[in-house]
Amino acid sequence: MRLDGRRLRHLRKVLRAAPGDRLAVGLAGGEIGQGEVLAIDRRSAELEVRLVAAPPPPLDVILVLALPRPPVLRRTLIAAASLGVKRIEIVAAERVEKSFWQSHAVDPGVMHEQLVLGLEQARDTRVPEVRLHRRFGAFAGDVLPGLCAGRVGLLAHPLGASPPPLPWPTPALLAVGPEGGWLEPEVAAFEAAGLRAVGLGERILRVETAVALLLGRFG
Amino acid sequence: MRLDGRRLRHLRKVLRAAPGDRLAVGLAGGEIGQGEVLAIDRRSAELEVRLVAAPPPPLDVILVLALPRPPVLRRTLIAAASLGVKRIEIVAAERVEKSFWQSHAVDPGVMHEQLVLGLEQARDTRVPEVRLHRRFGAFAGDVLPGLCAGRVGLLAHPLGASPPPLPWPTPALLAVGPEGGWLEPEVAAFEAAGLRAVGLGERILRVETAVALLLGRFG
Repeated sequence: MRLDGRRLRHLRKVLRAAPGDRLAVGLAGGEIGQGEVLAIDRRSAELEVRLVAAPPPPLDVILVLALPRPPVLRRTLIAAASLGVKRIEIVAAERVEKSFWQSHAVDPGVMHEQLVLGLEQARDTRVPEVRLHRRFGAFAGDVLPGLCAGRVGLLAHPLGASPPPLPWPTPALLAVGPEGGWLEPEVAAFEAAGLRAVGLGERILRVETAVALLLGRFG
Repeated sequence: MRLDGRRLRHLRKVLRAAPGDRLAVGLAGGEIGQGEVLAIDRRSAELEVRLVAAPPPPLDVILVLALPRPPVLRRTLIAAASLGVKRIEIVAAERVEKSFWQSHAVDPGVMHEQLVLGLEQARDTRVPEVRLHRRFGAFAGDVLPGLCAGRVGLLAHPLGASPPPLPWPTPALLAVGPEGGWLEPEVAAFEAAGLRAVGLGERILRVETAVALLLGRFG
């Protein structure tokens, strides 16, 4: 296997790989294993790759995320991918600034890069699917009911009831709002689709922190 | 109350505060409440402040953290402070690069800034205490036993046993290693102090992600 670009830079600058070194590798969408560096220079690296195992099991939670501001989106995508989420639905909400949708952070290519960083971190290979929903009403009315079928639905909300006992069951759907919270009609739409609002206590958390904390509660 | 510097910039640029606006405020180490903007210009803002409530309850978990690389340390301090941790012990480990101790990120003033950002995020006011331990052996032998007294001790480790049932009890002490993991003698030192190694599954996580996930498991 021949590597160049970002992966070659990582090999040379971070891992300082030399011929004979063995590295953890994975094939996008496939198995993981070991690669032995056969040759490496400024232009490319040649690895002998043996793929021997399945990637870690996915976390069967669909993450519904009110679009956060761009740097928070990048960190949240990395965190969610590293934690094994395979489906992310990014939605509009009243408290999401319209300008966020114009950011490069929502370009499919840019999001793909963040997801791959999260996968590499966790030695996973299966890229999560991400969809954008720029109209909350259309998402709640047309998409959400189908997503919820056969899943426990949880809505993170500062004003939610006390959380169900841990660990939370999967398969599940978890909706995480903007830092300012969902508005009442949004909460009502989620509840109509069967989601249960779960409180996070008095503390308002950064989105990437809330996502890691909440995903860690599934069994 | 008169504000300037970073807080004034936040009022003007992020909140776009104007006279008459009401904001969530807190007094360092004290109560939280509301502030009404009386006047605001380029040099300062004048608020009338009413403090009416206690900050959110702390999370009674001592966080022992192998020093991560500087940007990860900054994000981890923000996350831990926002989650209510009040005591953080940053320790050396074999897989911690020596150069990390020379970074500005471990200056007390810089760490204090990150902690305050985390507190503001969560509307908390009590600043966590952070101590640095540049020699693992001295920490494990002289400091750790006293910290563990009366606490459940948990050691996050890829090779740990399966985790105890959720939610985890407090008061507790949680030790989170470098991304490469603790070495065997380090694990042995923690186990000698009564910590139980808990596995995190196959996924290797960023330190700030692991910290949020693990802290979310305490009841």
